Amino acid sequence: MNGTTIHLNGSGPTNGSIVNGSKQYHTDETATVTTQSPKGVNGVGASKVSANGVHASSKRCLWFEEELEEDLRWVFGVSKILHTGVSEFQDIELVESGPFGKVLILDGKLQSAEADEFVYHESIVHPAMLYHSDPKAVFIMGGGEGSTAREALRHESVKKVVMCDIDKEVVDFCREHLSANSEAFRNRRLELVIDDALAELERREDTFDIIVGDLADPVAGGPCYKLYTQSFYETILKPRLSPGGILVTQGGPAGILTHKEVYSSIFNTLRQVFKYVVPYAAHVPSYADSWGWVMASDHPFPTFSPEETDSRISKRIVGDLQFLDGQTMAAIFALNKHVRNSLAHETHVYTEETARFIHGHGTAQKSH
Amino acid sequence: MNGTTIHLNGSGPTNGSIVNGSKQYHTDETATVTTQSPKGVNGVGASKVSANGVHASSKRCLWFEEELEEDLRWVFGVSKILHTGVSEFQDIELVESGPFGKVLILDGKLQSAEADEFVYHESIVHPAMLYHSDPKAVFIMGGGEGSTAREALRHESVKKVVMCDIDKEVVDFCREHLSANSEAFRNRRLELVIDDALAELERREDTFDIIVGDLADPVAGGPCYKLYTQSFYETILKPRLSPGGILVTQGGPAGILTHKEVYSSIFNTLRQVFKYVVPYAAHVPSYADSWGWVMASDHPFPTFSPEETDSRISKRIVGDLQFLDGQTMAAIFALNKHVRNSLAHETHVYTEETARFIHGHGTAQKSH
Amino acid sequence: MNGTTIHLNGSGPTNGSIVNGSKQYHTDETATVTTQSPKGVNGVGASKVSANGVHASSKRCLWFEEELEEDLRWVFGVSKILHTGVSEFQDIELVESGPFGKVLILDGKLQSAEADEFVYHESIVHPAMLYHSDPKAVFIMGGGEGSTAREALRHESVKKVVMCDIDKEVVDFCREHLSANSEAFRNRRLELVIDDALAELERREDTFDIIVGDLADPVAGGPCYKLYTQSFYETILKPRLSPGGILVTQGGPAGILTHKEVYSSIFNTLRQVFKYVVPYAAHVPSYADSWGWVMASDHPFPTFSPEETDSRISKRIVGDLQFLDGQTMAAIFALNKHVRNSLAHETHVYTEETARFIHGHGTAQKSH
Amino acid sequence: MNGTTIHLNGSGPTNGSIVNGSKQYHTDETATVTTQSPKGVNGVGASKVSANGVHASSKRCLWFEEELEEDLRWVFGVSKILHTGVSEFQDIELVESGPFGKVLILDGKLQSAEADEFVYHESIVHPAMLYHSDPKAVFIMGGGEGSTAREALRHESVKKVVMCDIDKEVVDFCREHLSANSEAFRNRRLELVIDDALAELERREDTFDIIVGDLADPVAGGPCYKLYTQSFYETILKPRLSPGGILVTQGGPAGILTHKEVYSSIFNTLRQVFKYVVPYAAHVPSYADSWGWVMASDHPFPTFSPEETDSRISKRIVGDLQFLDGQTMAAIFALNKHVRNSLAHETHVYTEETARFIHGHGTAQKSH
Repeated sequence: MNGTTIHLNGSGPTNGSIVNGSKQYHTDETATVTTQSPKGVNGVGASKVSANGVHASSKRCLWFEEELEEDLRWVFGVSKILHTGVSEFQDIELVESGPFGKVLILDGKLQSAEADEFVYHESIVHPAMLYHSDPKAVFIMGGGEGSTAREALRHESVKKVVMCDIDKEVVDFCREHLSANSEAFRNRRLELVIDDALAELERREDTFDIIVGDLADPVAGGPCYKLYTQSFYETILKPRLSPGGILVTQGGPAGILTHKEVYSSIFNTLRQVFKYVVPYAAHVPSYADSWGWVMASDHPFPTFSPEETDSRISKRIVGDLQFLDGQTMAAIFALNKHVRNSLAHETHVYTEETARFIHGHGTAQKSH
Repeated sequence: MNGTTIHLNGSGPTNGSIVNGSKQYHTDETATVTTQSPKGVNGVGASKVSANGVHASSKRCLWFEEELEEDLRWVFGVSKILHTGVSEFQDIELVESGPFGKVLILDGKLQSAEADEFVYHESIVHPAMLYHSDPKAVFIMGGGEGSTAREALRHESVKKVVMCDIDKEVVDFCREHLSANSEAFRNRRLELVIDDALAELERREDTFDIIVGDLADPVAGGPCYKLYTQSFYETILKPRLSPGGILVTQGGPAGILTHKEVYSSIFNTLRQVFKYVVPYAAHVPSYADSWGWVMASDHPFPTFSPEETDSRISKRIVGDLQFLDGQTMAAIFALNKHVRNSLAHETHVYTEETARFIHGHGTAQKSH
Repeated sequence: MNGTTIHLNGSGPTNGSIVNGSKQYHTDETATVTTQSPKGVNGVGASKVSANGVHASSKRCLWFEEELEEDLRWVFGVSKILHTGVSEFQDIELVESGPFGKVLILDGKLQSAEADEFVYHESIVHPAMLYHSDPKAVFIMGGGEGSTAREALRHESVKKVVMCDIDKEVVDFCREHLSANSEAFRNRRLELVIDDALAELERREDTFDIIVGDLADPVAGGPCYKLYTQSFYETILKPRLSPGGILVTQGGPAGILTHKEVYSSIFNTLRQVFKYVVPYAAHVPSYADSWGWVMASDHPFPTFSPEETDSRISKRIVGDLQFLDGQTMAAIFALNKHVRNSLAHETHVYTEETARFIHGHGTAQKSH
Repeated sequence: MNGTTIHLNGSGPTNGSIVNGSKQYHTDETATVTTQSPKGVNGVGASKVSANGVHASSKRCLWFEEELEEDLRWVFGVSKILHTGVSEFQDIELVESGPFGKVLILDGKLQSAEADEFVYHESIVHPAMLYHSDPKAVFIMGGGEGSTAREALRHESVKKVVMCDIDKEVVDFCREHLSANSEAFRNRRLELVIDDALAELERREDTFDIIVGDLADPVAGGPCYKLYTQSFYETILKPRLSPGGILVTQGGPAGILTHKEVYSSIFNTLRQVFKYVVPYAAHVPSYADSWGWVMASDHPFPTFSPEETDSRISKRIVGDLQFLDGQTMAAIFALNKHVRNSLAHETHVYTEETARFIHGHGTAQKSH
């Protein structure tokens, strides 16, 4: 005898049968495998939960923890790590979370959660596109996850969406693993560029009806903050807007307690550059905060009734929106008194010298 | 010599001086106390931080953790426990938190935070009172913290605010320790009743223009859920509303992911009892969620422009509001499409037999 | 053109080259892929850390948390989930931890850590085997991880090691993924049985010089506690010991504060059944506690000097031990006064009616 | 009527009675206070737990977290903050913990826990004193908590214990709040000096039979590391040892995974200065690790049997020890093979230039 003898002592038909070919059993093993059902456990192969009455809920033991502030943590249970990757810029993880379904994590920060990403992505894309009379060309700075492109591509008027993200690995990772966006990644109208959005905009000569800033928050040490400065907006971005074109950018946390971290400054910086600037915000549960966006244009924004907004949505957008409609859009544009006052009185302007940073990890995150 | 000799070896004027009278030094000690400045530490009695360069920031070591869901935790640093108490119903703690200032905790659940309690309390009180033509009498179910009464008392039309909380210790604790409410607790128009609100309403014969449900969420095992049932609203509460009277109640979490826990049911239950029912919601940062309220009346709610709301606020309310104004009120009444759809399709009605519960601690919380 | 255009705007040789064959790029894409090094980032393909100076250490975001007691948690960072599995009995995870290297987790409880598993496994195996005059046949109850078998197989006198674990998936998982044990799993002297150890011992007719109880702690609801009862030891296990045979079992936490949970009872139970019973303990860092074992026999244990122990080790055991030698063995057998007193005064005996349980997850864990 | 009316609607004898004089009720209030027992709650003033069946166990919400390593946390529930203080050097907290009873915390690091402080303090004091032929004079560097002095004062031979701690506030705090040490603090043989131990030893001209280093671990930025250097031991400490005198110092974590942080270096440094150096260690549960100490002398340590140790203990020490006896002392002196090997091969020597630091908070902790 020249190997481990493996008995799975079983009564019944499997008793004494020989199992081989299983990859972990080496050929020099005389694998006598028989199976014995443990007493009181009715059937091998039954799922773990049903096999023993006691295992109603196994104890959560893996937790994702995001440090929102130095002394504020957002912690949720993780039941499975689905995929992991590393890029030149950041760690990439897709995990199955308890409360938020699949969650994309970049460098330890929750980026997007299956359960509520529609709030963020409908909000960053549709208002600007609905306010535009006929958006044909869209440029997305960042957005490597693909969800922003997905929403833009739902507009029938759109001929071209250029998505420019610096991180090829994030883009590849999301293309492969985020099934909700796989159709968008294959869409013929999508042009995908792997580059620094600033360099790409500087290089291009075409213009866009809508430019979307789906970038990481300005974080100390990260290159992203350059894409929030007055000079960038004036000298690089604005020349790439078509007449009547609209810029919309994410603006970081916009809650009662957090809107002064960067949001009010981003708003105020845009106010220096554009004639018409519209801040808006919505609560995104998985971010544990309200989130802010800002639209800006040198063309006045039209005034719609909620009904007109609903009508534009049904005419222009393929499929149903989950979060936005006319009434919701009116609501997210109506910031509360407290935040509105702060924005009105903000004097800080983002320049390369005066950047203001959010609490974060000091890394170059390129997609929000 | 009959005691410990205490030397604080010091150079200079304190050398050899005798310190006594300090309460911890017993009289039988020959306390020869001299002080020696440690090398490199310039000055005794200097504050800890300035005394040694290294102590820039001491490590946070105490954390408050609230389990929002079984697998979702909201965790913040606590720098100081200010006051603690125990009542017949719950543990009471007032702590100094890092991100939210002073925080009131009842049975391990954050009730109210200095930094943003104005969002919750302005929202629960002012909309109903502003929609009412002339609110004179207000009844608060729960509200032991005092903040709801404080807001109601800001209305000049109000002659009487009855606040009925079951937990005397919470009321006493908040009266003593929450300085923001101390004036309200002394206000002559406040009538404070320590009792079960249900029993109190059943017993009373007067009626109210506004009844506010500032109660704990319906939690399994807690008595509070009885104050959310259809029969309570119909047979006990409604008879206590004056003609044109309005009920407003807190409704639990109303976020994209949480509004079906209890909020949609509370809304739907009220819809069975009242002709006009208005749900509204706002993000309360320290709750890590959007929060919901519902107004209900058999009298139609008037339609105001934001300007008219602002005008009523300035005419009726003493002092400035921080969160609410006409625009904010329009915004919080405009629920997003996702939540609005859920509410429209909710069929569950709270009865004593069909109560639906929020994730919680199974305890009798009486004040939110 | 019928697909996404992918530009990676690059200078140099890759400029304009076409990449295809990558599984995520579909054949209908005109993949014009060029790469542009982002400004300030010197070289594509460089590792993430070196590419941007700021990414010195990415923030830990995944944590493993074990609840040792209701109010005591042991929490460590996890950098990678290496493998996961589910068996009929438990969840199985192999993770890369920060402080302990690779860690095997069964149902949320840390079982074994690369960094210090040698402490536990040398301690459970070698003392009994060294005290025995000539151990030839070894039976391991549980031990599915394979480390206990590995240590037993290092004894040159051993002809046969029977390892009987109820959980085939755990055994297969460890055989495949724990490289330190792969040789042991292939060893011809190992006989592997998948069954309840109690049933297997009842069924067998051969006897053993050493029987090792490498089982899960007695946990409420788990079947394992039956393998700690007086009647099991007397009527099922003892008949399977050869003359001079020794039983050794793990005994749960044996720290100053935890030894009364189950350890003192296991010791006292064995004292009812065997003439000679020897408790011993050692601190296992990854368990955050001292751990206890008990040896028992009807044959007196010989008295060795540390030098004699060292001599036996070098004569009998292949390779070097990391933790145990003569001096260490003397030390772990010398329990401290506090624990020794508790053990001396323990009166509880494990029977099926009086089982005492450790704080745990209420699940059937079969391998420690 | 000029104040809040307070009704506690009650049936029975308290109904209608007037309560006044309570400090929070102002004299201008017509405090009509009546009490109504809530339905189903039998009796006001009953304890919280018994009053309502549901409150069996309130959810733990306050946690103490110590970061042992960057990715290893020791977390326990805190039920009460008993006392807090701030000194020139550190934050001071005494909390009631779930698993460890009262716990003293200095600058976020657990210093001493009621449940197991006897392990640390018996171990740091008694071995050296028992090995000495007749210890009369003891000098404690640090030890502000008072427990080390308490143990030393239990030796009947001792005429004088000088305890020299830099932090007067810690000493005062512990004197006032640690009842276990209050008798020691009042003991006439205790001489308490508030100073840097290094300066004090430099200044003194008397010598000691035993010098105890009950100092904080060497932490980057803290002044304590100077009390672990070769030159300190040689030029300042050694001259203060009487002939036959023994130094014993705490040596930081001594676990399988942690003994190389500072313990092996402290041992090796002492080996450069003293002829006879004895390392020993024991698991201290509340530290989540084994802890190390080192005895050093130029006089050889005698060899005792455990019985002789027991005999010395009973002759010399007042009262019973909880942890140490002859057998325990033999065990803690027998380090395991792994740690012993590391110590034997350690080459690092502490000097002011080559200090090695433990993971910590960068603050000046003076008492362990």
